[in-house]
Amino acid sequence: MFFASDNWAGAHPAIIDAMAREAGGYAAAYGASEVDRRAEAVFSTLFEREVAVFFVGTGTAANSLALAAMARPGGLIFCHAGSHVVEDECGAVEFQSGNRLFHIAGPDGKISPEALEAAFARFTPEFVHAGRPVGVTITQGTEAGTAYSVDEVRRLAEITHAHGLPLHMDGARFANALMRSNASAAEMTWKAGVDLMSFGGTKNGCIEAEAIVVFEPARFPDLPFLRKRAGHLFSKTRFIAAQFEAYLQDGLWRKLASHANDMADRLRTGFHVSAQARIAWTTDTNEVFAILTKGGAERARAAGAVFYDWHPPAGTALGADEIMIRLVTSFATTAEDVAGFLAALG
Amino acid sequence: MFFASDNWAGAHPAIIDAMAREAGGYAAAYGASEVDRRAEAVFSTLFEREVAVFFVGTGTAANSLALAAMARPGGLIFCHAGSHVVEDECGAVEFQSGNRLFHIAGPDGKISPEALEAAFARFTPEFVHAGRPVGVTITQGTEAGTAYSVDEVRRLAEITHAHGLPLHMDGARFANALMRSNASAAEMTWKAGVDLMSFGGTKNGCIEAEAIVVFEPARFPDLPFLRKRAGHLFSKTRFIAAQFEAYLQDGLWRKLASHANDMADRLRTGFHVSAQARIAWTTDTNEVFAILTKGGAERARAAGAVFYDWHPPAGTALGADEIMIRLVTSFATTAEDVAGFLAALG
Amino acid sequence: MFFASDNWAGAHPAIIDAMAREAGGYAAAYGASEVDRRAEAVFSTLFEREVAVFFVGTGTAANSLALAAMARPGGLIFCHAGSHVVEDECGAVEFQSGNRLFHIAGPDGKISPEALEAAFARFTPEFVHAGRPVGVTITQGTEAGTAYSVDEVRRLAEITHAHGLPLHMDGARFANALMRSNASAAEMTWKAGVDLMSFGGTKNGCIEAEAIVVFEPARFPDLPFLRKRAGHLFSKTRFIAAQFEAYLQDGLWRKLASHANDMADRLRTGFHVSAQARIAWTTDTNEVFAILTKGGAERARAAGAVFYDWHPPAGTALGADEIMIRLVTSFATTAEDVAGFLAALG
Amino acid sequence: MFFASDNWAGAHPAIIDAMAREAGGYAAAYGASEVDRRAEAVFSTLFEREVAVFFVGTGTAANSLALAAMARPGGLIFCHAGSHVVEDECGAVEFQSGNRLFHIAGPDGKISPEALEAAFARFTPEFVHAGRPVGVTITQGTEAGTAYSVDEVRRLAEITHAHGLPLHMDGARFANALMRSNASAAEMTWKAGVDLMSFGGTKNGCIEAEAIVVFEPARFPDLPFLRKRAGHLFSKTRFIAAQFEAYLQDGLWRKLASHANDMADRLRTGFHVSAQARIAWTTDTNEVFAILTKGGAERARAAGAVFYDWHPPAGTALGADEIMIRLVTSFATTAEDVAGFLAALG
Repeated sequence: MFFASDNWAGAHPAIIDAMAREAGGYAAAYGASEVDRRAEAVFSTLFEREVAVFFVGTGTAANSLALAAMARPGGLIFCHAGSHVVEDECGAVEFQSGNRLFHIAGPDGKISPEALEAAFARFTPEFVHAGRPVGVTITQGTEAGTAYSVDEVRRLAEITHAHGLPLHMDGARFANALMRSNASAAEMTWKAGVDLMSFGGTKNGCIEAEAIVVFEPARFPDLPFLRKRAGHLFSKTRFIAAQFEAYLQDGLWRKLASHANDMADRLRTGFHVSAQARIAWTTDTNEVFAILTKGGAERARAAGAVFYDWHPPAGTALGADEIMIRLVTSFATTAEDVAGFLAALG
Repeated sequence: MFFASDNWAGAHPAIIDAMAREAGGYAAAYGASEVDRRAEAVFSTLFEREVAVFFVGTGTAANSLALAAMARPGGLIFCHAGSHVVEDECGAVEFQSGNRLFHIAGPDGKISPEALEAAFARFTPEFVHAGRPVGVTITQGTEAGTAYSVDEVRRLAEITHAHGLPLHMDGARFANALMRSNASAAEMTWKAGVDLMSFGGTKNGCIEAEAIVVFEPARFPDLPFLRKRAGHLFSKTRFIAAQFEAYLQDGLWRKLASHANDMADRLRTGFHVSAQARIAWTTDTNEVFAILTKGGAERARAAGAVFYDWHPPAGTALGADEIMIRLVTSFATTAEDVAGFLAALG
Repeated sequence: MFFASDNWAGAHPAIIDAMAREAGGYAAAYGASEVDRRAEAVFSTLFEREVAVFFVGTGTAANSLALAAMARPGGLIFCHAGSHVVEDECGAVEFQSGNRLFHIAGPDGKISPEALEAAFARFTPEFVHAGRPVGVTITQGTEAGTAYSVDEVRRLAEITHAHGLPLHMDGARFANALMRSNASAAEMTWKAGVDLMSFGGTKNGCIEAEAIVVFEPARFPDLPFLRKRAGHLFSKTRFIAAQFEAYLQDGLWRKLASHANDMADRLRTGFHVSAQARIAWTTDTNEVFAILTKGGAERARAAGAVFYDWHPPAGTALGADEIMIRLVTSFATTAEDVAGFLAALG
Repeated sequence: MFFASDNWAGAHPAIIDAMAREAGGYAAAYGASEVDRRAEAVFSTLFEREVAVFFVGTGTAANSLALAAMARPGGLIFCHAGSHVVEDECGAVEFQSGNRLFHIAGPDGKISPEALEAAFARFTPEFVHAGRPVGVTITQGTEAGTAYSVDEVRRLAEITHAHGLPLHMDGARFANALMRSNASAAEMTWKAGVDLMSFGGTKNGCIEAEAIVVFEPARFPDLPFLRKRAGHLFSKTRFIAAQFEAYLQDGLWRKLASHANDMADRLRTGFHVSAQARIAWTTDTNEVFAILTKGGAERARAAGAVFYDWHPPAGTALGADEIMIRLVTSFATTAEDVAGFLAALG
């Protein structure tokens, strides 16, 4: 009953098998091998266009390098106030890019179009004192467990592109978000206006597999140097490539994300009927924010459930006997885990 | 017959097995798991003292973060002119540290004590214009295929410590160098005065396993933040820990490095008696720099041997019919590979 | 009738005279001259203790270098959301320090103690993901035209020091703020807990004279290198020293700031009785934020008055016929300027 | 008898007068004033084309910002091993640009075309490991007291431009170098292929007046933000503009530099006939490197002469009774100073 985070889960057997196969022979280092080429081709197929792919080992690496690729001196990168780049990356984006993260408000963990337009209205490209916008980053799915619709992505892209700037998507949980929509990967990204993205595999069954996917490579020519300078070019990058090849093969990534989402649905359903728990707000992906009775939480933990307490955001009222928690399901969560948790609540 | 680089080899089965075992369950993320603790303990045992260990994915990450930990504004990091941090890391050290790499001369790819003393004599800690020394980094084994003796390390450490500064060792090929000595890991490092090191596993049979090992952790308190800020803290860092646990168990790492060194010895022996090849300079580890007849090189390549041409350093004279090459052996090199290469030379 | 900013005014004759005197001879460069020593001594006298002084040419240089001196990897520098370092310095602090500015709320342009305590409660020194506080900066007088009392400074210093961290004061308009209190320079700064400050002369009659004043120099040993590395060590730094020597002599700086404050008082008094203008909020220093009828503003501009429109902050309601403006007085503002402006309003 | 450095001299009266005139009134801040416009126009006239001018306060600021404007991730900036950016700027270029200074050899303090071509041949634009060239900087006059001819500049520019990269000139002593040629300012710079330069006034009679002059402004669009972000945009930048307006008016700058050069010639002439002194190597500008008998040096110092001992470069042989020194003349050096120095040698 591990609900602390999806990165507490290990790795899917197909991922390990792919690495084991790759371990046997020799191959060119630094991204020049056959499996690197094959994995890149799989990404191009997935996105229905030629893309450039930069394999890295962490989501923070992917985000900070992708955003560094759009940076300019004095730049402001627009992001949601509650996004991962703000809350959980130790200033990595600022360090790699030399730019500032400028917070944009919006409900449900999403940037609102009105707030984005207001932010653009506030700055001019030539006024050096205040800094200048250089791009926008959104998270799909968000840190609040929600997901942007294709239309929502498109609206933010239109606003961003109207200023000649690129839109980045942090897709650490892209699979979970995509599985909630009827859209293809292409429709959710570049067809809606996303210019480059961080494509995550680690939270959904890989060991460490993240990729910067660039839809218009000529626009971001510095990425190879940014990656190497940051120490994020693996000599045996083919082992990341191998993970992605297996991950994307036969829709494995979709199945794993759908499963995690389903497990989260079971939690949500259970909370609707439990006297010990209620949903804090509606979520779309594999994250569930819930308000539990203290007794229920204690009983669940006593039964072996692992999960984090969560700080209630402004506007979330708790009773004296209640606490807020976050539960994250993964490819490895079982129906028994969920049932056990719900039963333990009492 | 792959002699291009030791990072062209895949991974030892024990490494893959360790990762596969780890893939099965759940564990705390970001370095808080049991296997993280165990691997750290193995390092402390190996080095015969309590050490702090920071797992990262690349040697460039290990070097640049370790050197950033000793940096100060206006700092100069003394290193050999031909070292990996100078030649092959795209300015990563300068980027992470904000400091300058200051080149120190010395034969055989090693910093000479005299040149190091002369460099220290040139700068004063308070003169802002020229910058100030903040530490020294040496490579063990060196990029020239040589290895420092324990006495040589100690001499450089004494000079460095006389100025109150730390000594870093880039140990991407530490195993290969150590196996050429009679010293223990402790004797080759902190007992000789090394303050922190980059401990490499990737070139010697791991997939991606590098560690910053700090012998006096209190002296470098910023490393946890430096690593996270740079995007080098893996969520599933336990998969690096698992590689190291297997790598260091029962002396596996020593066996693999000794084997690679032995294979290099066979090449050296073969070159001494070949009419088509001669040694460019004496090396200690798993790198052999050789001068081949063009015909010999062509025949070897025609027979399937893979290796890089190498730029002859100043003082290395080639005949009109000769080229210089580098051969790197690894844990995976076989006696048949070597024999086949030597036979193909003609 | 120039009310656009206090940096539109030229320089006081005593400042020019001091520079002209210095121009005649020879003196050691890079801060080693007699006048450098004398000016530093004047600062120590003013602050009633030995201080270290670093002369620079701009307030942005002073702020960004002073805050860089307290920075650490992954650091968060707490500041008011509306402060100059946030709004008007193009990311200079982030660039020099590599740290993030973390916004603290508070009315009247001042950090509130409650908000500061809440911010400290949110972060822990060891949790790498969120970053860690490294210090606090306050502005005296604030960008909103207000001034902290000595007690208010002391309260924020106590909170900051309770976490072992330093408090910086951006004193670009320190003179104007100090003249509103009964405190000495020492009482307003280090006696209340300020650890280092940016001491401004440019806005109050100097040409370009800013200084980082450090009350415990041993705590910030990197400042000489930070300044030089940033290109802010003037070869003829003695010309900044000479400005400060004249500026601080016989209380000139106090007289100039008092005069500017008096001129602002006249504006405030005039607005209280004018049908064309009202005060937007109460200010203490030489900045007046006013709401004018559009007709009044047009008439003033037609009569030659120069001033900026200002963006009304949240909570400031304007009538359909009103605009908000900012007026800044200076050492050079005359009673006739003020009277002329008030008369022109109609 | 002050020969320590040209920045030990004060300022020419015309410079002070210009500042005093500017002190009287009001003017728009941050480069928007009339005198800013006028000074920029004077630069365009001087260089016989439209140029963009960025006023800053120090030569280190000018160099580091200009080179930052040509930087890219992983970039190598080619410069002479003995240049000011290497020897005397505390890593400012690396800090502002994030790039590495790569040393190019050459006699007489100048980059040799052969060494420059060899350096370009060593790197390729796409090989991330070694970094990539992003531009070249030369110093005019050099730190060795020599000056490039127009033909020499053109040759280096051709090599640089053949790789699509820009050439920067550090002109801290541009006036002294130019006065040794028959060339116009335009011929010595952009007509010979210089793309942007640091134009110095401080060493030749100004207080603090340096400018980045950009010959093709569209190529370096980030400079306004680079300057502001670094804290080098003065609010009263008009006082730098006023210095330059006076400096460039009626050829004042030429007269001052010619005078300094003449004084250096008198030293050179004197050394040719002195038994106590000899020229270390031939110089062109206002710097004279000389080898003195220890007795002569002592007598000169006893008579009040101020100058620095200098470290003899490789290949400069000193007798047991000799020391090497540097003498720098300036606009303020008098014939009596020179005669007194020569007489004191004995």
